[in-house]
Amino acid sequence: MVTAREPMASLDLPAVDDLVFGGHDIRDQSIEETVEQANEAGGVPNSKTLDAVREDLREIDERVTMGTARKCGQVVEELSDDKATNEGTLAEIVSQIRSDYETFAAEQDVDKLVVVNVASTEPPIKGDEKFDTLDELETAIEEDDSDLPASSLYAYAALVDEHPYVNFTPSTGSALGGLRELAAEKNVPHMGRDGKTGETLVKSALAPMFAGRNLQVLSWEGHNILGNTDGLVLEDDANKEGKIESKGNLLEQILGYDHHNAVRIDYTPSLGDWKTAWDHIHFQGFLETKMKMQFTWEGSDSALAAPLVLDLIRLIAYADEHGEGGEQPQLASFFKSPQGVDEHDLSVQFQKLYDYSERHLNDAPSGTVE
Amino acid sequence: MVTAREPMASLDLPAVDDLVFGGHDIRDQSIEETVEQANEAGGVPNSKTLDAVREDLREIDERVTMGTARKCGQVVEELSDDKATNEGTLAEIVSQIRSDYETFAAEQDVDKLVVVNVASTEPPIKGDEKFDTLDELETAIEEDDSDLPASSLYAYAALVDEHPYVNFTPSTGSALGGLRELAAEKNVPHMGRDGKTGETLVKSALAPMFAGRNLQVLSWEGHNILGNTDGLVLEDDANKEGKIESKGNLLEQILGYDHHNAVRIDYTPSLGDWKTAWDHIHFQGFLETKMKMQFTWEGSDSALAAPLVLDLIRLIAYADEHGEGGEQPQLASFFKSPQGVDEHDLSVQFQKLYDYSERHLNDAPSGTVE
Amino acid sequence: MVTAREPMASLDLPAVDDLVFGGHDIRDQSIEETVEQANEAGGVPNSKTLDAVREDLREIDERVTMGTARKCGQVVEELSDDKATNEGTLAEIVSQIRSDYETFAAEQDVDKLVVVNVASTEPPIKGDEKFDTLDELETAIEEDDSDLPASSLYAYAALVDEHPYVNFTPSTGSALGGLRELAAEKNVPHMGRDGKTGETLVKSALAPMFAGRNLQVLSWEGHNILGNTDGLVLEDDANKEGKIESKGNLLEQILGYDHHNAVRIDYTPSLGDWKTAWDHIHFQGFLETKMKMQFTWEGSDSALAAPLVLDLIRLIAYADEHGEGGEQPQLASFFKSPQGVDEHDLSVQFQKLYDYSERHLNDAPSGTVE
Amino acid sequence: MVTAREPMASLDLPAVDDLVFGGHDIRDQSIEETVEQANEAGGVPNSKTLDAVREDLREIDERVTMGTARKCGQVVEELSDDKATNEGTLAEIVSQIRSDYETFAAEQDVDKLVVVNVASTEPPIKGDEKFDTLDELETAIEEDDSDLPASSLYAYAALVDEHPYVNFTPSTGSALGGLRELAAEKNVPHMGRDGKTGETLVKSALAPMFAGRNLQVLSWEGHNILGNTDGLVLEDDANKEGKIESKGNLLEQILGYDHHNAVRIDYTPSLGDWKTAWDHIHFQGFLETKMKMQFTWEGSDSALAAPLVLDLIRLIAYADEHGEGGEQPQLASFFKSPQGVDEHDLSVQFQKLYDYSERHLNDAPSGTVE
Repeated sequence: MVTAREPMASLDLPAVDDLVFGGHDIRDQSIEETVEQANEAGGVPNSKTLDAVREDLREIDERVTMGTARKCGQVVEELSDDKATNEGTLAEIVSQIRSDYETFAAEQDVDKLVVVNVASTEPPIKGDEKFDTLDELETAIEEDDSDLPASSLYAYAALVDEHPYVNFTPSTGSALGGLRELAAEKNVPHMGRDGKTGETLVKSALAPMFAGRNLQVLSWEGHNILGNTDGLVLEDDANKEGKIESKGNLLEQILGYDHHNAVRIDYTPSLGDWKTAWDHIHFQGFLETKMKMQFTWEGSDSALAAPLVLDLIRLIAYADEHGEGGEQPQLASFFKSPQGVDEHDLSVQFQKLYDYSERHLNDAPSGTVE
Repeated sequence: MVTAREPMASLDLPAVDDLVFGGHDIRDQSIEETVEQANEAGGVPNSKTLDAVREDLREIDERVTMGTARKCGQVVEELSDDKATNEGTLAEIVSQIRSDYETFAAEQDVDKLVVVNVASTEPPIKGDEKFDTLDELETAIEEDDSDLPASSLYAYAALVDEHPYVNFTPSTGSALGGLRELAAEKNVPHMGRDGKTGETLVKSALAPMFAGRNLQVLSWEGHNILGNTDGLVLEDDANKEGKIESKGNLLEQILGYDHHNAVRIDYTPSLGDWKTAWDHIHFQGFLETKMKMQFTWEGSDSALAAPLVLDLIRLIAYADEHGEGGEQPQLASFFKSPQGVDEHDLSVQFQKLYDYSERHLNDAPSGTVE
Repeated sequence: MVTAREPMASLDLPAVDDLVFGGHDIRDQSIEETVEQANEAGGVPNSKTLDAVREDLREIDERVTMGTARKCGQVVEELSDDKATNEGTLAEIVSQIRSDYETFAAEQDVDKLVVVNVASTEPPIKGDEKFDTLDELETAIEEDDSDLPASSLYAYAALVDEHPYVNFTPSTGSALGGLRELAAEKNVPHMGRDGKTGETLVKSALAPMFAGRNLQVLSWEGHNILGNTDGLVLEDDANKEGKIESKGNLLEQILGYDHHNAVRIDYTPSLGDWKTAWDHIHFQGFLETKMKMQFTWEGSDSALAAPLVLDLIRLIAYADEHGEGGEQPQLASFFKSPQGVDEHDLSVQFQKLYDYSERHLNDAPSGTVE
Repeated sequence: MVTAREPMASLDLPAVDDLVFGGHDIRDQSIEETVEQANEAGGVPNSKTLDAVREDLREIDERVTMGTARKCGQVVEELSDDKATNEGTLAEIVSQIRSDYETFAAEQDVDKLVVVNVASTEPPIKGDEKFDTLDELETAIEEDDSDLPASSLYAYAALVDEHPYVNFTPSTGSALGGLRELAAEKNVPHMGRDGKTGETLVKSALAPMFAGRNLQVLSWEGHNILGNTDGLVLEDDANKEGKIESKGNLLEQILGYDHHNAVRIDYTPSLGDWKTAWDHIHFQGFLETKMKMQFTWEGSDSALAAPLVLDLIRLIAYADEHGEGGEQPQLASFFKSPQGVDEHDLSVQFQKLYDYSERHLNDAPSGTVE
């Protein structure tokens, strides 16, 4: 975990062992089954780990209830239990989510509730400017506006009751003007979107090298193959659109000019939880000499994402504890499209987190525990 | 060129068109022939460029005289003209170099002479602590100490007459205590070593990503194949030793822990001036999940190195103009083993150059040209 | 060239120097311009070669007249001169092509006319069974059936006048029942389709290894990026469909079972004539151990295709000379989808050519030139 | 397994379930421990398989006794138990091996004993011509000639008592004139050397493609990294020499000309049983256009080797049953350096096995079981 490194490790973050997990799902399948399948298909987690946490998984399963798949695209709806897609008006759904949040918090007796979106990618929404103010957004919920996706309903339900919110997916989540307004008004921290786990992480580390050396990128082609449910959902062009937007934009920001830049995502079932990205970077140096760099990145999606989710829970809970509402620029390095942050250079993003941590460490009176 | 980017482009650097090139070589072959061979073998430069600069190359050839290959290793000696290796005592050689510097400067009527070492890699020297003071070094020259390599003789000859010195190779150059003392005493800028053109450049961009995300690198294997004279010289284990030391160290500094880290360099004549590096990075993430990244980097050695040499000439001449003697940390991003700088994170190194440039731009009285 | 190797080199093939080139194009751009652009963009051919053949190219340009782009898909039509797409009924077009063939042969006084299709890929045609007999086909021409593509018109015009025909593209060409019947009736040789130049060539060499070792291929993903007009035309999904069918089928034939098998083709303008394929092969061995092989193939499309076209002209002219009409199984190794041949193992296909050559060499009375 | 495919599957081969394993080792470590380490380090075999065969492994361990590490190189000697290296004269060692063979066969009551060498690679021996006849060889054993390596002692002990012998390693084994003479005299089948499991397998599939297409290979560079004991032993230059000889020769045979051809093997402990090869093939096509192919092969050494060992045991027992003594060309496809076979084209080698199998199937009287 990033929070296991200094200087973050010295912050008074909530301990991982103190976290209690629960949530909504839209499939009937238990987490235990999902993890068993992942172990079978790709060996992550391995059998020893699985056996060690099996009891914990069953406990979490008991805390998982049926969620909503509204506006999540056709593939997700096909994967979903009927109840997840058909029941209720938006107002009823939001009310149910809020009530489930409170029930969970009360039953588990937690000090703080943090909401994290780790659901499959939704298709991008059209016309998000119609949710630009809190007023417009709340009217849309009242009027059952069918354009509002599940991710934003969960975000609304979190923020309105002052629970910190993290959007680990490319879905809309809290990235609506109305939700930013709500977060500001309630002074509750939120951040997104799209956890930067693999190919895009590498891009944000490599692109500054080309920029800094004035090596002109002519084309940057990326081809991703992956085998988990994420891959299955991204087979659908509508859902894929959201993902690809999120993956491609940062190159232009870092390089400062337009170039040929394509991202492909293909579902390859045999890979299980594993994802391979092949990137081909064609660039031009001195005297217009054309050269190239290629890389492959072969990672387990879950093993890359899981620690970041824990990091984000710990860091956003900390921000909330310190009264820091709104978007959280110190968390930019965790996201492909960090809300409210234009900087995509990974090293600079890391520096924001280090600076934030050191500022807090310096502020804490020496010799005391915060 | 890096100096074509802002903020460096706004500095009052010497114009590229005002530079006059000359130098020492240890082979009889003319530059024109060398460039023709490079054009034949790998297409860099292309035929149009070659025709455009052919006349300039001939002029430069006239300004090139025979140098010394003392202590450059057996392969270099075999490539060398007899005169390059056998003539004179160290004192006589140094005296000849100084005199050649002065003659060149006088004949070309240049404002400032900058010395750059772009010769083939020497074997690393043993016992460099015996040249730790200027006194010891000058005594060694007097006594014709056979351990002093050519690169350090050229550096001495430059610094003693207050010419800025750049070591673009892994050879010893100015990295001796005695030469640092001399540079400080004369207040003349110098910097090295080993231009960071390809695989190591990528390493310095990628390794901070693994460090920042707490992904533990288990092994980092690099295999380089290249076809130019550099490759031929590096076939020799003694010369290769210097290169590999220079390429490998930065990973440990950036990652902060020891790991399996190997660098191979093989001569593959068919590649001409082209160099391909394949790197295999095996790393471990959450729950000890083992993952991997691989990259290949295919570049023209000359096209990558040439603009950096121009950048360095311009920037060190600028430093000299501003009375900034000694090692030049703002130039760290150009080198695999930046003298006097422990930082190897490429983004942080770039930032040093940007900060330096902005400081100078802010210092310059507005409305005036420095 | 393959025909420069033994035993083919000993066949009495037409000499390359005796070939005279002419043809139809659907763009206004001259061959000289096209080759100049290729030289600029990717260095193939290099400047020396270009200068050496420039006069020849101009002569060929004079022998090129406007062709037809009927049913070649929207992208090709947009690239085409107006005259190429709009003029005449099918019967008029066929008549024009036949007349152009005769004029060329007469003016150049050639012994034999060989027609080769090297045009951009057409979208696959629907309902090719309605051209299953010569009778149906000729009726379709008479009735101006809009489903007949340009490639089949050129093939018809060739075969009906007994000119050997080669289809180097994935387009329909002579692969219609009616044209096979015509070729048989006239005893004229024809062969296709789709020259096997790169990624598919490698597949046909590697897949037999997986089959022979009983290593089960779980998925074989291929991603191709290329920058020439072919790539531009393949941007269009309709045209791409034809190409991908042709590239994918052979794996199933060689492996003997179904598996996940995807081929992507993306247009990357900066690559010019160069094509890079990345293939990711996920396979399973003993005890269900999952392993992988990846390859990249980086070739100049033209430099790979051109010698094969020459080989095919020489070999099909030879077959015609020896009265061997119909499909030519000895040429299977040249094609992704060899007409009339189910065998896709490259070595076995090569063996067919060697056996054919040796049979002819043995048949030739010793001491005589055929 | 290859023998699970037709036509081999129809041969009356010994059933895998009927095989009983035992042998010599030179380390004290039990097979169970070795397999547990492999499971830990690289997941091959996985935990389920390990648990399923644990009891079998223990039984095999009981049938393993201390062997000899004579002339196996310094690294192997360091890994070895003292008894393995120091005890006895050659005559005594051979006598002990023969006696251990007989004891095993008697205790396990097997119909046929097959000896397979799967020990670590020995350094190549000097002066193998002094063992060119059986007479010379037996004299050398009598006189305790220190140049005779362990692998040849095991081969001698097998052949002299008419047990079929397979050399799955690059060591000398039965590739001495004296042992070939012995096998012929006794009419016992033997074959080697060096199981073709990975990189070389791919080479033997790909090189015929370059040859057949007349694409001239300029250089073929291979870099192998691996993490098991094999890798450790190959760290030693002496042992590595044997391996590299075996890997490199086939290219020259297939291509028919000399070219730059290098093979590197590096020990990378973190990879455990996994081996990654990166090959870079630089080749030249039409008009001297230089192109390249690169591949990586990532396999589990054991999972690739184990089924081949089973295949070889079954097929050589079958040959012995049919009175086919001497070298076994139908087994060429299994070996990097097939004894007595010059053909390295993988498809042609496979064909030899298919032809052999079909000949035997045709010979068997229909309706009977052999």
